[in-house]
Amino acid sequence: MELFSKETYQERRNRLKRSLSGGVLLFLGNEESSSNFKDNWYPFRQDSSFLYFFGLDLPGLVGVIDLDLDIEIIFGDELTTEELIWHGEKPKLSDLAEQVGIRQTRPMKEIGNYLENGKQRKIHFLPPYRPENTQKLIHWLGISGARIASHVSEDLIKAVVALRSVKSEEEVREINKAVNTSVNMHRKVMVEADPGMKEYELLSMVTGEAIAAGGNLSFIPIITTDGQILHNHNYSNTLVEGKMLLGDFGAESAMHYAGDITRTIPVGNTFSPLQKEVYEVVWMAHQAAVQALKPGVRFLDVHLLACKKLAEGLRDLGLMKGNLEDAVDQGAHALFFQCGLGHMMGLDVHDMEDLGEEFVGYTPSLMKSRQFGLKSLRLGKELEQGYVITVEPGLYFIPQLMDQWEARNVHKDYINYGKLANFRNFGGIRIEDGFLITSNGSKLLGDPLESTIQEVESLRSR
Amino acid sequence: MELFSKETYQERRNRLKRSLSGGVLLFLGNEESSSNFKDNWYPFRQDSSFLYFFGLDLPGLVGVIDLDLDIEIIFGDELTTEELIWHGEKPKLSDLAEQVGIRQTRPMKEIGNYLENGKQRKIHFLPPYRPENTQKLIHWLGISGARIASHVSEDLIKAVVALRSVKSEEEVREINKAVNTSVNMHRKVMVEADPGMKEYELLSMVTGEAIAAGGNLSFIPIITTDGQILHNHNYSNTLVEGKMLLGDFGAESAMHYAGDITRTIPVGNTFSPLQKEVYEVVWMAHQAAVQALKPGVRFLDVHLLACKKLAEGLRDLGLMKGNLEDAVDQGAHALFFQCGLGHMMGLDVHDMEDLGEEFVGYTPSLMKSRQFGLKSLRLGKELEQGYVITVEPGLYFIPQLMDQWEARNVHKDYINYGKLANFRNFGGIRIEDGFLITSNGSKLLGDPLESTIQEVESLRSR
Repeated sequence: MELFSKETYQERRNRLKRSLSGGVLLFLGNEESSSNFKDNWYPFRQDSSFLYFFGLDLPGLVGVIDLDLDIEIIFGDELTTEELIWHGEKPKLSDLAEQVGIRQTRPMKEIGNYLENGKQRKIHFLPPYRPENTQKLIHWLGISGARIASHVSEDLIKAVVALRSVKSEEEVREINKAVNTSVNMHRKVMVEADPGMKEYELLSMVTGEAIAAGGNLSFIPIITTDGQILHNHNYSNTLVEGKMLLGDFGAESAMHYAGDITRTIPVGNTFSPLQKEVYEVVWMAHQAAVQALKPGVRFLDVHLLACKKLAEGLRDLGLMKGNLEDAVDQGAHALFFQCGLGHMMGLDVHDMEDLGEEFVGYTPSLMKSRQFGLKSLRLGKELEQGYVITVEPGLYFIPQLMDQWEARNVHKDYINYGKLANFRNFGGIRIEDGFLITSNGSKLLGDPLESTIQEVESLRSR
Repeated sequence: MELFSKETYQERRNRLKRSLSGGVLLFLGNEESSSNFKDNWYPFRQDSSFLYFFGLDLPGLVGVIDLDLDIEIIFGDELTTEELIWHGEKPKLSDLAEQVGIRQTRPMKEIGNYLENGKQRKIHFLPPYRPENTQKLIHWLGISGARIASHVSEDLIKAVVALRSVKSEEEVREINKAVNTSVNMHRKVMVEADPGMKEYELLSMVTGEAIAAGGNLSFIPIITTDGQILHNHNYSNTLVEGKMLLGDFGAESAMHYAGDITRTIPVGNTFSPLQKEVYEVVWMAHQAAVQALKPGVRFLDVHLLACKKLAEGLRDLGLMKGNLEDAVDQGAHALFFQCGLGHMMGLDVHDMEDLGEEFVGYTPSLMKSRQFGLKSLRLGKELEQGYVITVEPGLYFIPQLMDQWEARNVHKDYINYGKLANFRNFGGIRIEDGFLITSNGSKLLGDPLESTIQEVESLRSR
């Protein structure tokens, strides 16, 4: 288990404590997760906020920060003698806790009482996303399942989001590791993908690379010749010359920081002329968005800038028409770009998604739009120095959506429906990289990965 | 999604129906499982009994066989128009259901009412092992969480175990596929493992191979130079000449049948003389056990035979003494072989473990022993033609256990405690293969994988 220094965790908790006025802060670590029978587990993944404040990458722990009594406790059980025989000698929990600056550990069976004793006090907890942790809250706090959501602590969410949003130098180093592994995974696919291969052979490659770097995947990869399907976890297609392959995947470092990159490449050595035209539009939008990144700029505006660039390109392709400012304002471009420009990235690939987009990506004065397209933008608020985000514009030609809109004449002043026929089997293109927001702009995370048409084709021709 | 023929699933359900007299049979399929936030999923794994009777490898389904009304229904929801845009066109649930011979599908929201209407009738369900399925039972059946276990249907468990225990020819073909992928994974490690490598690099290799074959891992691999740690999911050791590497892993085929093989190899090209001696003991026990496999023989007796062979070898090594029949009877050998000889294998690597060992591996007249060692034997009952099982004897030198026993003088008439010092850092050796029980013996599953000292060393010297 890799850890930052003891002082790092102490400092994080101290800053958290200063931002809340009282009560008990309850951080539920994760449990092992069963796949097809209880003891056949998925690889263990610790909760990210628990990792951030308590570091320990082990199942079955709960962290408590008691603001009123000014004590910090990790609840958890030592291995029994018999478990020790099956699992090998492990450091004692108290020694592990000491490594992250926690002096007190207690057996898990005492937590119910501990929280019970604090019944008159406010118990702050984050929104649970695993059913077993919901069960614990129901059991320990005597709250019905239906009322858990209303008891979640907004104050704690806001305090955690404020801390986790701004990445420290040591965090950025970890993210760079994850991104560099992700770069290697992509370059391997970009070099080795060949007509006749199955998508799952490429899944095999990238999974192997992520693990070989000492970590794992940061999310289930998208590796598909159907790039227009945005959430595609199918890998059964055979790579066919003439199609493009969209790969959206990344590694998680040993310390669980995420990388997330997308590239779209021709299955053969070169893009077709039409593929080149569309790729160039996405690439220009990507460039424009990256140029616009800096503290104080709303990511919503960067998103809209990218949309505008996409719309201009689509006009040049003959697919859009009319006043493009109005088109983007009304969401007409979302026929081709249905999703958001990017998201925060850190200990989670969609950082802090469990804490709620209204707190992570928006503010009380900037609420998320409900417009198709914009409603999928996870991050809208002003960027700050230290934020880590992705920029991932794309163009996706989804036959079902095009048919739906055409049948209802949606945005007909801005869309040339007559020209869409050529694009029904085009697929989709996305280009995604991760960036650190600096004092006056942004910095690409990780080593540069080929992204221009020329760079991609030259890599494919190796 | 690969499926057997419609008739296969119909026949399985028909046989199940004939073995139960009435009521409603409720099969809960699995849901997506969250890792670090709700929508960041682990790879989907369908419930194995659901796969067996209903075949459909998709989340969010429930299968109902209503014996009283003689109808079969799959409850589940079609993709909404918006989901279709994100996930791509999918076959309709009714068309999928038709492929497994089910004529009726209904939206999930109707299941509560359906079961409510049957309140006067017996609702048979299997033990849930995922918290979200426990929640569904609580919600739909109005049973408290604490009482779910007592409402599980023993009749349904027994009927399902009777069917799933005996593998059909088409199932054996699938298992052979999974085992052959497992053989390839092992051979790759046996050839490519080298001093200086990290265990996780080998994890990367075998994970990649399993996925490249179109499936996945059948369980979290054990790949360790600390072979004496029986459940070891740590991969941080560096391979050092002189040590042995124990690899216990296998693939799951695209249809989710499991393979499970263990080999122990020298990190260098050859075993040391002492390693050879111990290896030979394990190999002889393995051979003796395999020879003994046939219908009508209790696997408990095969286990005890293997224990006896291990004890004889340990006596020759100077580690055991006295009357070895008595030693094995009293469990003295369990200082070195703490676990069971094997388990059933099929759609689960420990087949049907979720249904309970008392039903899968034992009978009312043959209860599992509580003796250390024997209590870890998952399968004790008589073998039958069509069973698929593993045979995996081993010798494990666990310093903590040796110290514990020596301090308490456990089985001192059978153990030469004075001779154990040489073995404190020895590690562990296991040899495991899978077998189909035939009409008069057994058949190795998959292609033979190198297992003798000579075969292993010759592979290592390539």
